[in-house]
Amino acid sequence: MTKSVFYHAGCPVCISAEHDILRLINTSEHAIEVVHLGTHRQRISEAEKAGVKSVPALVIDGGNVLHINFGASLEDVKK
Amino acid sequence: MTKSVFYHAGCPVCISAEHDILRLINTSEHAIEVVHLGTHRQRISEAEKAGVKSVPALVIDGGNVLHINFGASLEDVKK
Repeated sequence: MTKSVFYHAGCPVCISAEHDILRLINTSEHAIEVVHLGTHRQRISEAEKAGVKSVPALVIDGGNVLHINFGASLEDVKK
Repeated sequence: MTKSVFYHAGCPVCISAEHDILRLINTSEHAIEVVHLGTHRQRISEAEKAGVKSVPALVIDGGNVLHINFGASLEDVKK
């Protein structure tokens, strides 16, 4: 079981990507934690350290960051 | 069985994203066709019509385009 984290900020681009990703990925083999950075602001620094530059983004086990489309920059989420 | 098309152009960002996507997605339920636009240039217009602006990109059934990270713009691939 691998573990990925999907960071988003509730924007329409984020929600659309979340829907697509959760539908495509085999969640019986790949656990995905969904983190809304707008409501869980204490996790913004964690996302930043993982290399997230914009949301939505999927940080996969092994450390790669997949920035999927562009909803908002992490700088904008911080404001 | 749904059908998605992963367009790329052979760049390092493309190859890395392809590896991640193929590992995460349940390919027993979601067929993924991988198209290298550098070697299959006749399919560039198809990608453009599907809404691909840059590669790597995954066009999923239903029509949504997931632009995953940024390897090259489609304009650059056309050159």
